[in-house]
Formats: sequence, C-alpha cells, structure tokens
Amino acid sequence: MTSRSVTLIDVARAAGVSKSTASNALGGAGRVSETTRRHVRNIAQELGYRPNTAARSLRRSSTGAIGLYLPRTGTRLDYYMKLAFGAVERAREDGLDVVLLGPHTASGGGLASRVDGLLVIDPDIADPSVPDLLDADVPVVTGERYLGGGAAPSGAVVCDNAASLTALLDHLAERGARRPALLAPGSGSDWAAALHAAADTWSRRKDVEVTVRTVPFAATPAQADAATTDLIATVPDLDAVVCAPDGAVPGVLAAALRAGLRTGADLLVAACVDGAAARGTHPQVTAVDLRAAEYGQACAALLSDLLAGTAEPGTVRRHDWTLNVRGSTTRS
Amino acid sequence: MTSRSVTLIDVARAAGVSKSTASNALGGAGRVSETTRRHVRNIAQELGYRPNTAARSLRRSSTGAIGLYLPRTGTRLDYYMKLAFGAVERAREDGLDVVLLGPHTASGGGLASRVDGLLVIDPDIADPSVPDLLDADVPVVTGERYLGGGAAPSGAVVCDNAASLTALLDHLAERGARRPALLAPGSGSDWAAALHAAADTWSRRKDVEVTVRTVPFAATPAQADAATTDLIATVPDLDAVVCAPDGAVPGVLAAALRAGLRTGADLLVAACVDGAAARGTHPQVTAVDLRAAEYGQACAALLSDLLAGTAEPGTVRRHDWTLNVRGSTTRS
Repeated sequence: MTSRSVTLIDVARAAGVSKSTASNALGGAGRVSETTRRHVRNIAQELGYRPNTAARSLRRSSTGAIGLYLPRTGTRLDYYMKLAFGAVERAREDGLDVVLLGPHTASGGGLASRVDGLLVIDPDIADPSVPDLLDADVPVVTGERYLGGGAAPSGAVVCDNAASLTALLDHLAERGARRPALLAPGSGSDWAAALHAAADTWSRRKDVEVTVRTVPFAATPAQADAATTDLIATVPDLDAVVCAPDGAVPGVLAAALRAGLRTGADLLVAACVDGAAARGTHPQVTAVDLRAAEYGQACAALLSDLLAGTAEPGTVRRHDWTLNVRGSTTRS
Repeated sequence: MTSRSVTLIDVARAAGVSKSTASNALGGAGRVSETTRRHVRNIAQELGYRPNTAARSLRRSSTGAIGLYLPRTGTRLDYYMKLAFGAVERAREDGLDVVLLGPHTASGGGLASRVDGLLVIDPDIADPSVPDLLDADVPVVTGERYLGGGAAPSGAVVCDNAASLTALLDHLAERGARRPALLAPGSGSDWAAALHAAADTWSRRKDVEVTVRTVPFAATPAQADAATTDLIATVPDLDAVVCAPDGAVPGVLAAALRAGLRTGADLLVAACVDGAAARGTHPQVTAVDLRAAEYGQACAALLSDLLAGTAEPGTVRRHDWTLNVRGSTTRS
C-alpha cells in the first residue's frame, strides 16, 4: 500500500473506529478521547496516511461555489449580513460564488453536487440541519466550534469569546460595577457556552457574583427589556447589565429608563456583539466588536485553503475581537 | 420567415432601433417614447414576433442558480437579509440556488455562465454595477424600477411607495400633525423618487408644507439625529418627523429626547421601513411594513416564471405594504 492510496476509511478500518471518529481524531476539531486520538494517529502514521491526500480526495470537479449556512434565527441580525458579504468578497478572489443556504437545509437535495464546500456559522446543537450539513461529503468550515457529535468539520475559525466577556466584565468593574448581570442564550452554541463559562470563572476569581439570565439566541429588544425589568426588581443594587444577543440591547436601555436609572451612570450597559443597535442608542453602548466582515473573510479563506490542500484538515484559526468603549459605561 | 424564428434582433433591425430599445419598447418596463414603442410594436406584430419565443431563447443550459444583487449600502440593513432569505426559500421550490453577489459585481467574470438569471434589488442610478448587470444576457428582475437608461429588465416587482407615504402623512395629520418633515435619500432610486414626489403632491393637496431633508440612502442613527436636530432648530412648531432610511429612526428619537420633546406627544415619529430599529425604540415607532421576506419571494417567483416562459418579458407585479401603528404616533 503506497502512502498516496491510503484513505481515511483505511485508517478507520485499521484502527477499528468509525470514519467520523477517525476524522475527529486526525482533525483535532472534534470531540474524541485522548486515548482514541493517539491510537488513530499511530495507525495513520503506520499506514503512511497523509492528511493532505484526504483533503485532495475531498475535492471533486469544482462547482465553482461554496455554500453559506447561517443560524435559523440569524436572518434579522445585521451581524450575519456583514459576515456573509465578507465571505462573498473573499470567495470571489478564488473565483468562487457563495450560495446562500436557507434555514432547514439538509444535505439531501444533492448539496455536494451544488457546492465544493460549506461554511456553517455559529452551529447550534438545537439546529437539526447541522449534523446533516457536517455529513455532506464536502469540506466544512464552521464559524465557532460545533458542540454536538457526529462528523468533525474540516476546519473552524474561532473567537476567544471567554476572553472578550472577561475583558468586558473587567472594564465594568474598573468603572465601579459591583453587581453585574448577564443576559445570555442557553449553552447550545460555542459562543453562548463560552459566555456562561467565562461569567462563572470571573465570578469566582473576583468574588463578585454575576447574575445570569437566559434569553433566546436572537432575543428581541422587548425580551431584553422584560429580562432587565426583572433583574432591576430582583437584584438589589444592580449596577451593570451585559447583553449578549445582537440587537437586543435597546431593550436594556428602555427598561433602565422606565425604572428611572440613568444609563452610563446609575446602570452601566454593555453588549457582546457590536452593531447598528449598540451604536443607535442614546447613549451609545460599549460593545465587543467581532469584526463580522473580516470573520466571514477568514472563514472563506480557510475553506479555500482546505479545498486547495494548503491547509490541513482540522485546522483551527483564531479571529481577533476588539472592545469599543462608549457612553453607556463612561460614568460621564 | 416563420414566427418561431423571429428574434428580438430581427425586430430591432426592421424597426431601425437598438436591441435594448426594442426590448424596452416591447417589455414596457423601460423608458422609451410612446411613438417608438408603438412603431416597434407594429413591426413586431408584422413580423409575427412572439415575446415568449424571446423568453425561451434567453434560457440556456441551466446553471441551477440565480444571482442576487443588493444595494452597496445594504449590508447593514436587516431588511435586505429578510428579503434575501425570502428569495432563497422561493428559489429552492424550483430547485434553484441563490448566489449572493457582492458589491461592485460586474457582468464580466462570466456572470451569465454562473447564473440563469438575476435579481437586482433597489437599483440606484449612482451604482455603476447596475447597467452592467442589466446587460448580463440573462433575464433580470428588479425589485423596484430602475430609473437609469440602458437595457430594460425582463420584469420588476414594485411597491406603491407613494401610496404608503401618503397613508403615513394622512395618519400623522389625523393625529394632529400640522408641521411634518421627511428625512429621505436623494432621488437616485425608484423608492426615494416616489417618496419625494408623494411628499410634494401631499403638500399641495393638503396645503400643508412637508419639509424635506436629504439624508444618505442608508443613513445612520447619528445622521438622522443631526438632521432632526437641525429640523427642530429651524422649523417653527415642527410636530412630526418621517424617517425613510431603514435603521436610522432611533436617531430621530435621540434628537427629540435631547430637545426635551416627548416622542408620541410633542413630536410624532414614523418610519418608511419597518424593522428591528423601529420596534426596538421606546416608544416603538409607527412604520410601513414592506414585508421583506414576501418581497424576496415575489422577486424570485417572477424570475422563475420568466425562466419557465410562463410570464411575459416586461411583466411588472405589485407588492403590497401594510402600516403598523405604534406608540410613536398615538399621542397617548
């Protein structure tokens, strides 16, 4: 058996594991025990398996297009629109079109014959389409990791969302906040899970309790308003609210206004996703800028590299964020 | 010459006009004098030209995809995201993918070999890509009409934007407004041109002056804030502001707040495009709902019909709007 002819299936058979477990073990982007990972890697080395061969074997007669799958709830968030156009811009550099995939897209319908690869952004374990997409027999790059099981993606571009929330909480503490609260979605996505974990770690490290309220992934301003009103009523001396869902932060300001709390003075307010909503309020809201257009570019660039065989399957790239400090936390 | 073999070029030659003028004259969606239109139509009838033949001749070996072109400024407006997913949903019913075209897309790069047809949404005369796209040698459906010259689109889906602004101004007058103002983009798009014309007509019919301030097509809240602050300072007894650009209306409320005017009482506020921004303010803002997802569906449906030969080239379909009345105009 020459090294060129060794496939992922050969490795999986020799190791006595499934193809997806072998992929996970070699790729490094999925969940697999360290023992299994070492076992599969040893087998792969023995057989002379080369990941690049796998990457190339995934390539087929090019459709000239890649697919873009956004969260089902993402259609009203300008964050995803910026990300989409970033991906379009980068893909065109390689002569690739971006096909916008609707909600409820399954890998059926000949998806693999329509696109060379897929971008799956913020995959949520509650989304039934995601496992199908990961199994679509074309390279897949996820924006943030997928926390569910099944086939591992070929690559991922990730933000350090724990670090950005920690920076936000540090900033609020520095501005005098002693009783902060966080409005965050449940832990079905890598992003939300990181926020919960970071709030918990920060609370214990600083010995300052962060009250966490769960809201929908794409909470509306009205839902943020209701959650904030409840926080104001139940948390004594509440002095800061961090709102995770994009676009919902005006609801936090509305609740503060009704309660007679001055945003930026009596109540500090910050958002985990910068965008039109955070910039459109009065005062404007301090927010983490995830640089959506550049994020989309980075996802498309990694997929291009995987298709060209210039990135190894399992590649995970980091994407940087910045903190935009505005009037809602200046105590001016 | 049998009727089946007569092409648009045959008609153009016989009539002594260019292909695009012949297309405009027969299609009815473009600008051409009534004399020319009648002349070309007579020639077409004499030759036995059948528009359906032309529609079929435009069909080529299917790429399985249609292109979607959004305004260059549209990437941060959730209106266009909803519209895009509406188009994706409808196109999938016909087995068509939707390729998202980036800003600055030209008909070069083999566009006609990549897509069967194009959706060009809110084409603006200032956008240099639009004439190229209209000339891309595939059927084109525009969302709203194109006010520039060149090749006529194969079809259009239009809203009666004059009627919706008239309804909005009537509503404000009914709620007691005597000195309304309008923040609207310059007349480069069909939508903006209709708003200017409707404001002018309404002013003369009601003998109530509507003060119009020009703002960018995708004005930010800060730009709407600045324009409103200027209106408050310069228009005596200003009592209502209609904000046309999607997403900018929170700036109007911010300016009112700073000036000590209560929105919904001292100053009535309304928006020409409903969306997250209009629903996220306190009070929520009365707005025209253009039903973006359904608009996208209607555009994709017309393009499908043109590709299938079940709609005539030059078909213009109407799309309905509704008015959502909210706290910003209730005087409660």
